[in-house]
Amino acid sequence: MSWIEVTYRVSAPRDQLDAIAQAIALEQSVELPAEVVTDPFVARSVMGRVASTHAADEGPHRVVIRLATSTTGFDAAQTLNMLFGNSSLHAHVELIDADFPPEFLARFTGPRHGIDGIRACLHVARRPLTCAALKPQGLSSDALATLCYTLAVNGIDVVKDDHGLADQSYSPFAERVAACQRAIERARRESGRRCLYAPSLVGAPAVLARQARIVREEGVGAVLLAPALIGMPVFNELVTTQVDVPVIAHPAYAGATRIAPPLILGRLFRWLGADAVIFPNFGGRFAYTAEQCAGIATYARDEWASYRRTLPVPAGGLSVERAAEVVGFYGGDVMLLIGGSLLAARDQLAARARSFVAAVHDAFEQSAALPSAIPIR
Amino acid sequence: MSWIEVTYRVSAPRDQLDAIAQAIALEQSVELPAEVVTDPFVARSVMGRVASTHAADEGPHRVVIRLATSTTGFDAAQTLNMLFGNSSLHAHVELIDADFPPEFLARFTGPRHGIDGIRACLHVARRPLTCAALKPQGLSSDALATLCYTLAVNGIDVVKDDHGLADQSYSPFAERVAACQRAIERARRESGRRCLYAPSLVGAPAVLARQARIVREEGVGAVLLAPALIGMPVFNELVTTQVDVPVIAHPAYAGATRIAPPLILGRLFRWLGADAVIFPNFGGRFAYTAEQCAGIATYARDEWASYRRTLPVPAGGLSVERAAEVVGFYGGDVMLLIGGSLLAARDQLAARARSFVAAVHDAFEQSAALPSAIPIR
Repeated sequence: MSWIEVTYRVSAPRDQLDAIAQAIALEQSVELPAEVVTDPFVARSVMGRVASTHAADEGPHRVVIRLATSTTGFDAAQTLNMLFGNSSLHAHVELIDADFPPEFLARFTGPRHGIDGIRACLHVARRPLTCAALKPQGLSSDALATLCYTLAVNGIDVVKDDHGLADQSYSPFAERVAACQRAIERARRESGRRCLYAPSLVGAPAVLARQARIVREEGVGAVLLAPALIGMPVFNELVTTQVDVPVIAHPAYAGATRIAPPLILGRLFRWLGADAVIFPNFGGRFAYTAEQCAGIATYARDEWASYRRTLPVPAGGLSVERAAEVVGFYGGDVMLLIGGSLLAARDQLAARARSFVAAVHDAFEQSAALPSAIPIR
Repeated sequence: MSWIEVTYRVSAPRDQLDAIAQAIALEQSVELPAEVVTDPFVARSVMGRVASTHAADEGPHRVVIRLATSTTGFDAAQTLNMLFGNSSLHAHVELIDADFPPEFLARFTGPRHGIDGIRACLHVARRPLTCAALKPQGLSSDALATLCYTLAVNGIDVVKDDHGLADQSYSPFAERVAACQRAIERARRESGRRCLYAPSLVGAPAVLARQARIVREEGVGAVLLAPALIGMPVFNELVTTQVDVPVIAHPAYAGATRIAPPLILGRLFRWLGADAVIFPNFGGRFAYTAEQCAGIATYARDEWASYRRTLPVPAGGLSVERAAEVVGFYGGDVMLLIGGSLLAARDQLAARARSFVAAVHDAFEQSAALPSAIPIR
């Protein structure tokens, strides 16, 4: 048998740490006091146990708990349940890290394309990639398709729907996807460059299945999905059974957690099959730190079982002026996503898009950045 | 057109409140600076707007934002996206409340059974109900079925799986559900009393569909589902298309949010179809306050559109000794869930279960509690 080692951050007085660690081990497994667990198999092979506690002089402590792999049933939903089901209800407990044994990881596919697959789609071997967003919602499908064409023909690699675009009356999913895919194909023909359109899929499973079918029928090259919004187990099932093209994971609703961003965005989304992952870059309009962003990129790209590497996509208020800094920080295996700052150029959008593309290409040529500027843990 | 009024709690200096309120209104709708929104339809009918700001002298402030109903596409996943998609990534923002217009609520069914439907299943008109849990995981299906029988034959109304029970090798779903349902039927025959077994369904949509089929085939009387774990949109779809019997919602993974408990557990779970909702009672092993618990029960049971009322199920370290207090607090329309404290009785389980049932019945008879002791807002 094997165990998953799970790390939690605990905010509590130091002298309560051992008791809290033991409480987490029980809450996340048998949900009973240890003395009530009389069955020898349960006590030996199912009940969680404290691996170690790490008290800090100031601030929160850390505890490492061992949970039996068999409790997951090798199911994604049940795994989340074991990691953080009831403990998520404890305000003083945060889920920080999880170290899965090989037998567990071997039961999941991970990203089907990863960084190399996305690069192969685009015929771009080494340089950082560029991404832009179609917005605001409320525009007609034709207006969004026009934006899509302008961005793609001016050199953007991936044009994605704003994650707020769903199946609204003003730009119905089927109509919008068809229009934007035609726009991206026209841009590809005219520019001779490859580019991908990634529509946003959102809804309950039956709705997602319908949207995935439209994606296949229209020959769309990528999709955008928010795992926390549609349900992380749904994301995994959809990616492994109904979507062939690369999948870009969006963090919407995932910040509503007390799970460390590197774990949920870098590790868990990759585990469930994200080929690329969008996250709020530091210094933007979200409060993520440089350390958290480095942690996300590391977990997305490091060696992990036999899983393909996930492309980090820093976003959230990026501007053309920060391109060189961002490339320097993340290295070449990154995709920069600029949304509002491009669209703010309005009738200068084409020129602004070209500046963005040039800035990213130049930054890579001029920097001595290696594909992984961030040290791999 | 109509608007959803959404309340957020904001932790920030008071002089930044207006700017943050405006930023939330944009982030949760157009995701662009207002001056970039040039399309008159978008500016008028899609862009979010600040309804009011409420500065507090100390502690967090509140802001109320109006989001256009049409942006939801009347889809559960997209509605969560509009309420808290990107703002969930802001550590200083919490989602507190949402006031949906009638045209929105009319598009969703809400609970299909509600309190009255559960009472009809059990032939219990007025008194509080009792619920117990099968645990720990690791026990065989036969051992769990024996527990199920003992609890049911001694008067417990609803016996549910521990939410940690999934499809593990030591008690596979199909085998466990068949065994426990047979046990509950035997208890019903012997006692002449009605009781319900509620197995826990967990997994990706295809797994849930398989489990729901087993539930129907075995004639099971209720199910347990954790909406936040499987995905809230999945929960809604499953409940409206594949599960006929009453659904008890479990809060696992739902505490991992920065969403106020009364909103997510009382309001949103009811909106999506929960007939009963489990939540951590105050004074137990979770840190919910009496005010939060009253808020959950109020949102579960108050008049709301044409939705049936959802049964509040306080839990989380309840004991027989607290039964009278709990009944006094919530009134008659409540179901008390006692888990570990019953099982700790080991070979005295039957007697302990009878004490629990008697304590709840007595408390109701002796108290002057009306069905809703908590004032309806």
